Parts: sequence; structure tokens; C-alpha cells
Amino acid sequence: MKSPATATSASTPAYNALIPTFTRLYRYSHLGALAGWDQAAMMPPKGNGARGAALAELQVLMHQTLTDANLKGLLQAAADEPLQSAERANLREMRRDWELANLLPERLVEAQSLAASACEHAWRAQRKANDWQGFLKNFEPVVRLAREEAQLLSQAQGVSPYDALMAKFEPGARSAQIEGVFGAVKTWLPDLVQRVRAQQAQQSVLQPIGPFPIERQKALGVEVMGLLGFDFEGGRLDISTHPFCGGVAEDVRITTRYTDDDFVRSLMGIVHETGHARYEQNLPRELLHLPVGRARSMGIHESQSLSFEMQLGRSPAFLQCIAPLVQKHLGPQDAFSAGNLARLLTRVEPGYIRVDADELTYPAHVILRFEIERALIDGELQAADVPAAWDEKMQAYLGLDTRGNFRNGCLQDIHWPSGSFGYFPSYTLGAMYAAQYFASIRTLHPDLDAHIAAGDFSPVMDWLQTHIWSQASLWDTDTLVQRATGEALNPMYFKAHLERRYLAS
Amino acid sequence: MKSPATATSASTPAYNALIPTFTRLYRYSHLGALAGWDQAAMMPPKGNGARGAALAELQVLMHQTLTDANLKGLLQAAADEPLQSAERANLREMRRDWELANLLPERLVEAQSLAASACEHAWRAQRKANDWQGFLKNFEPVVRLAREEAQLLSQAQGVSPYDALMAKFEPGARSAQIEGVFGAVKTWLPDLVQRVRAQQAQQSVLQPIGPFPIERQKALGVEVMGLLGFDFEGGRLDISTHPFCGGVAEDVRITTRYTDDDFVRSLMGIVHETGHARYEQNLPRELLHLPVGRARSMGIHESQSLSFEMQLGRSPAFLQCIAPLVQKHLGPQDAFSAGNLARLLTRVEPGYIRVDADELTYPAHVILRFEIERALIDGELQAADVPAAWDEKMQAYLGLDTRGNFRNGCLQDIHWPSGSFGYFPSYTLGAMYAAQYFASIRTLHPDLDAHIAAGDFSPVMDWLQTHIWSQASLWDTDTLVQRATGEALNPMYFKAHLERRYLAS
Repeated sequence: MKSPATATSASTPAYNALIPTFTRLYRYSHLGALAGWDQAAMMPPKGNGARGAALAELQVLMHQTLTDANLKGLLQAAADEPLQSAERANLREMRRDWELANLLPERLVEAQSLAASACEHAWRAQRKANDWQGFLKNFEPVVRLAREEAQLLSQAQGVSPYDALMAKFEPGARSAQIEGVFGAVKTWLPDLVQRVRAQQAQQSVLQPIGPFPIERQKALGVEVMGLLGFDFEGGRLDISTHPFCGGVAEDVRITTRYTDDDFVRSLMGIVHETGHARYEQNLPRELLHLPVGRARSMGIHESQSLSFEMQLGRSPAFLQCIAPLVQKHLGPQDAFSAGNLARLLTRVEPGYIRVDADELTYPAHVILRFEIERALIDGELQAADVPAAWDEKMQAYLGLDTRGNFRNGCLQDIHWPSGSFGYFPSYTLGAMYAAQYFASIRTLHPDLDAHIAAGDFSPVMDWLQTHIWSQASLWDTDTLVQRATGEALNPMYFKAHLERRYLAS
Repeated sequence: MKSPATATSASTPAYNALIPTFTRLYRYSHLGALAGWDQAAMMPPKGNGARGAALAELQVLMHQTLTDANLKGLLQAAADEPLQSAERANLREMRRDWELANLLPERLVEAQSLAASACEHAWRAQRKANDWQGFLKNFEPVVRLAREEAQLLSQAQGVSPYDALMAKFEPGARSAQIEGVFGAVKTWLPDLVQRVRAQQAQQSVLQPIGPFPIERQKALGVEVMGLLGFDFEGGRLDISTHPFCGGVAEDVRITTRYTDDDFVRSLMGIVHETGHARYEQNLPRELLHLPVGRARSMGIHESQSLSFEMQLGRSPAFLQCIAPLVQKHLGPQDAFSAGNLARLLTRVEPGYIRVDADELTYPAHVILRFEIERALIDGELQAADVPAAWDEKMQAYLGLDTRGNFRNGCLQDIHWPSGSFGYFPSYTLGAMYAAQYFASIRTLHPDLDAHIAAGDFSPVMDWLQTHIWSQASLWDTDTLVQRATGEALNPMYFKAHLERRYLAS
């Protein structure tokens, strides 16, 4: 079957002529995605120099492909052709890729790729060694090059440098809007956290008793992935320092990490990445080779992972459904009752690590990073001053002292070492979208919890398939969310969700 | 340190101008090597379509890079420049790559890559299912395209079609010479096999009693790899259907396969691939990005794997050294005495499977394939007739009936499904080179066996490092072997080795 975006019509010659170039780019990006996954999940240390050089060469090649002199005229001519709506959306996405590439010199693209490879690779050991000074040497060029990129994009797009980087992950996002949303969260969240913690202080929660052998954690994770619909014929589960979802839509590679004293971290990490994976595995196959066939944005991507991890994964109904699996794989324990698991997984306690944070304190981790990276990119903060800013904000938002604790402080995430500035807001936007989706799903299925408790996730999966996965990049983010839920982003759903889950229990 | 081949001199402008192009090709090939390893060792089935397309796109890109109009003039001009000897060798290798690419149209390169990906991928299941007819559908286009390639190369190079393909793996090799060598082997080998089998019929060999848990086989393999000097900081061991050594020189990926009723197969497979790996891991680092920095040829590559597996790995001295490790990992058994292991690993018995064949019957497997693939490429045999030719030759050379047994017959190897015709002779050439090397090493170290038995492999490793690994592609194959051993290929060393090992014991 030819899809609307790939059917070729005699009346759209310029559009048709663009397709082979973008198909080629898709194939190149396949090699890069695989090499990136391997770098994080498989590669031994001495491979990194050659890998970094190969990936930088690929970035240069893709940049050259997108800056080919013919593309400008074709994109302009295609805009005047009688395109169908999916073709029109594809043209918009092609133009976006083209613009982003053409605003940056090849030298910068190559230098950024090399600096990020070197910094990220060294970070793995430096984080373990709590070596901020060593890290800073590699990090300064990463920041310098990101600022240079941000300046170039900023001048052309008429937005702030930070907004220009953020828009790479979330097209159209503006920090003024994010700041408004986050500012509102800051008004009600501290009080909510305090009330919930006071309430939970009365609650008794049994701690699971380890060790939990890694092979059994893995078997549990794999069974839960299956339950959530992960297609193992089109993907894998592996291990990496920083869990992620990578690979390509036809072959999705998710990772987790295990420690034998805790199974919740690996399990919830797997549930989270499975949300990303199902989005990729259910993007429309016939559009995959085109920009319109990609996931909409990182905010929407995180809305999938957080629909799975937070809305579904930490709900009492889901935990009722998987409690028998936990017992099957890890043996019987009183702590593995559905009720205790639900209390355990909604326990609120400020901590150092973002990816291990509970649902309620998580936004504080994101807001802190957003504020720091924005100041860093806009030139108000220097790389050397990140730890001090971190310490101050951790104290203010979560009451924790992180001085000197770089490994569990500003060295904990892969984003900055790899040059991804502007990504973090996606997490909290994603959490908010997810709450909004589930409000819609609950309206359609008032008995949703009963379905979930019985292991029937179809009300959730069918809704996501219809409204998000199948829609790829056919719409801009606001329109996608509007079509799916009837309104644009409304953070009140997130607040309502938190209050319902955390104050009612 | 700048190496002789990469130092740039003002008097060699054309040569200097070639370096960036070939460095870029090296980086592209990195991505292809990794994607190929992943395809065989990691990729789930639904990933194959996109992987095949991406790899074909990469082949096209590399072909375009090598057919760039500027290269011809630069190669010609560089030939007249005052090059040092390593530079001269590099120019020879660059010209070879350039010629091979420029003789083939892009359409053919892409079609071959796609046909091989599809055929090899389907072969994995078809082999298991013994499905020759299903395989044939994918195999016919692979053969047709290989013949087309062979014709094009043949016409330009003035050699037979088969010789043109063989020269891709072993530059300068001619089937007339191979046939002479193999013809000689056919005169003395059957009698030797018979005499050895008669002698061994009197010998009692204890069979190890399984099962041998895969985790323990792996731990044993890893320890033996370490003993043989494999650098785990620059490589990995994984599992694949067909064991191979892949990846890149900076990050060498070897694979094996395990069955729990037999540990010898995985162990000797690992020793074999470790030989390939050490060659790659010890190629001169400063030349890796250039054609002259590559391994010399597939015959020389197999001479490394067979130096490890056959000369070293199946020697009584080596088995004396590793018998305690076998006992450590697999538990004590009478069968694990050094003497019994040596008898077990030199046991001669005609069998169906090449990679499991003993040292003595192995050449018959290669000669049979050489004769079939040469007829296939030269057009004297059709793809559909391969099984009949196989059955006839297996009966003649090894006395085995393979009719209807495709999975253990002509479907057993990855080479033909992946379009590699002309590779097989490399194995027996390699075995012969390896015997010749060890004759030289024994002349230098008459007490070689005592060193090996004591776990001191330095006489072997130092010799290989000096004469083979460090020499990369600085010399043509004949010169390399001449410099290393004082004479060109002399198959008599192979015969002498077999007689000494198999008739004296």
C-alpha cells in the first residue's frame, strides 16, 4: 500500500524529487543510531576514538546531504505544489531538518560530535570517580560549541539561544511558556509534597528484602515488557550505565541497569523505556523513511514513557496485576503484596537522583536543570559554576546538601556530557501530557482501573495507538494534543492526578 | 608520532590529497563493520529490512566515494611523487580499492548488498528448516549478481571470473596455482587419513561427559582468550549462529556458539577467532585509517586463526597448559587429562561440518567448496545443481552420504548466502602458511613446546607480531611470507606438520 506521503503524483515533481534524499538520510541515521546504541551498551573502552571519528564523519555526511544546493529550490517549489495533507506535513518536517542544518557550518557539526563523544565517554569513569575537575576539561568545549550553535540558530530564528536548542527537541517550545508552567508548579508542589509526606509518615511500608539476582530481575522485566506489548521480534533489552531507548523504529533497543539490592529501579526503568519503545514500534511503517514518520517530539516521547511508568506503572491497578509476577520471579515476600507495592512505588522522599525520583519530587529535578542549562546556554552561568548553582537549587527545592557530591549531583545525567541542552523540560511536559491523556482515557473508560487490574491494557494502548503512535509527525505538538484530548496542554490535569493519587490514598 | 605513510611532505601533494578520502572511507567502513556484526550477533528479525537498506546505502556511498572523478588523476600523479616505501605500499592498496570500485556500476553494488542481506538473513531459518528450495529463490539472484561482478572484473583484469573474485580476498591468487596445491594435497591426503585412522583405531580416547553449562564454557573461553592475549579493552566475545571475527581493529568483535553437550567446539572456535582478533588488535595503530594498515589478505588472516587453533591450540603442549583450566571450569573428569585432550582434539573422523572438522579432513571440505564455487561462478554449474555436486564430492572425498541433508550439506556455511565466493581457499592457504610459520618458529626455538606447555607463548606471539601483525599490508602476500619465513608458500611444511603430529603420536 502506498501511503499518502509517499505516493508520487505527476503534479508534484519537486516534492517527489525530495523523497530519495530524505530516504537516504533515514538510512544514514540508521547507522548512526545503531552505532550510538552500541557505544552506550556494548562498546569496550578502546573503541571510542574510532567510534567518535566515525560518528562525526556521519554527522558531516548528513549535514552535507542536507546542505546540498539543490534542496532549497526543491523545497520552495514543493511548497507551491498540490500536496495532500500528509505530504504537506512531510514537507514541513523536511524543511525543518533543512533549516536546522543550513544554519550551522560543517566545522561546527563535526566539532560538536567529536567533543560530545569524548566528553560522554570520559564522563562514564569520571562520574564514578566523582571527578568534576577532570570532567570540566571536556565539558567546557561541549558548552562552548553548544553556545555557538545556539547563537547561530537564535539569530536566524529570532528566539533566545536556549529556546533555539530546546526547539530541536520540542518544536515551537518557548522558555517563557515553560517558565510559566514550571512557575505554577513551584507554587503548589512544595505544599503538596509536605502534605503527602506528613500523611505517608503515618503509613507503614514493608521494604523488600534482597538480594534480587540480576537474572531474575531480568526475567521479571522481560515478562512485564511482554505484558505491555513490547515486540521482541523488533527490539531488544540490554544493559547500560544510563538507561535509554535507542536503535531504530524497526529495531528498538532499550536498556536498563541492575543492582542486586533493588529491583524496583530496573523494573520501573524497563516500564519507562517500554513506553518509548511502543511509540517507535507503532509509528506507521509506511512513513518511517520520511521525516513525517518520526515521533513528534521529545515531550511527546516522554509522555509515552511516563504514561507507562507513572500513569500506568505506579497505579494500584497495575501493581495488582503484576504483583503475582514479582512473586513468581523474586519469590514470595510480604512486601510483594499489591497494596504494599503501591505504597512503595508512590513513596515520596526527596533524593539526589532524578531517574530514581518519585513522581512528586521529579518536577523539582527538571526545573533545577532547566534553570541551570538555560543560564549556561544564554551565557549567564559558566560551566565551572554549575556545581555551585546545583547545590543552591537542590537545597532550595529539595532541602538536600549536594556539596562535593558531584557524582550524585551535576554529573548524574548523560544529557549535558553528550551536548543535549534543552532536553530536560521534555520530561515534565511529558508527565503533564500523560496526565492529560489519562484524563481523556478515563472519561471514555470509567472502569479503566478494573481493566488494568485484570491485565487488559487495551483501553490505554488503543487510545495511544489511535491518537499518538499512528499520528507520527503529521501534526505540530499543540495540534496533536488538541486532537487527542480536546484541548492544548493543560497542567491542571497533572496537578489533579497527583492530588488524586497521593492525597486520597 | 607521525608514521611514514601518514607524514605529509610538501613534495607529495597528490599523495597527501588522497589521504582524507581514504580516511573517510575507513570511517564509513567502521559503521558498516559494526552494523554487520550487529546483524549477525544482536539484531532481532524485524530489523533486517531496514538494516539491509542502510548497509546497501553505505555500499553505494563508499562506491561513490571511490568513483569520485578526482581520484584517478591524484592516483596517477601520486605514482610519480617521491614516496617512501610505506607510502608507496599505501598507494598500491589505494589503487587496488579504486580499481575494484571503478570496474563496477553503482546499481550492481547496491543490488548485491541487498540480495546478500536478504539471502543471508533468510538462510538462518532456512538452514534450520533444511529448506533448500526456499533458499534457492534468494540464492539465485546472489549467484547471478556475483557472476555479473566476476565478468566485469574478469574482462578488465584478464583473469578468469572466479579468479577475479578470489583476488578480492587474496590479491594475486590464481586458481591454477590453487588447483596445483590442492591437487597435490589430493594425492597424499587420502592415504594419510587412512593410515592415521587405522592407527587411531587402536587408541582409546575418553569422551568428556556433559552437559557443560554454557556459562562455564564461556568462562573457560574467556580465560583462554586472556591467556592468548586478547585485549578485552578493545574487543568483545558474543554469540552468533556462524562464528566469526568482525568489528574494527580498534574494537574487535568475535563470536562463538555453544551447545551444552560439547565444549570443544566453542573452545576451539574461540581459539580460532582469537587468532583473527590478535592480528587486528596488533595491526599498527598509526596506519589503521589507511588501506596499507589493513590485514594483508584473507589467506594471511586465516593463517593467524589457524596458527592459534591448529598449530598452537591442538598441540599437546598447549593442551597440557590449559587442561587445568578445563578442569577448573568444567569440573574434574578423567577425559580432561592433557593426554586425553590431545588425543580427542587430534581425532580424525570424516564429518559433515567444515567448522567442526579435524585438521586432517578439513582440506577436503575446502577443496570441495573451491571446486563447486569455481564452477558456479565460471558458469559451468547452476545454483540449482549445487546439492548434487555437493553429494557427489562428499561421497568421493569423505565417503559420506549427504543426499537430502542440506542443512549439514551445502547450506552449512554463511559464505555463499552472503555472496562471498572465492573465500574458501583462504582456509587451506592459511593452514599451509601457519605450518610454514611454525617451522620457522621451531627453528628459532627448538624448545618451543616446553615454552608453550609452561604457558609462555611469547616465542609464537613475538614472531607473529614482528613478521605478520606489524607488517599489515606493507608487502604483497608472497613478499610478506618470503620475508617472514625465507621462502614463498611451500605446502610441504603443511604435509610435514600433519605427518609429525598424526603419525608420530
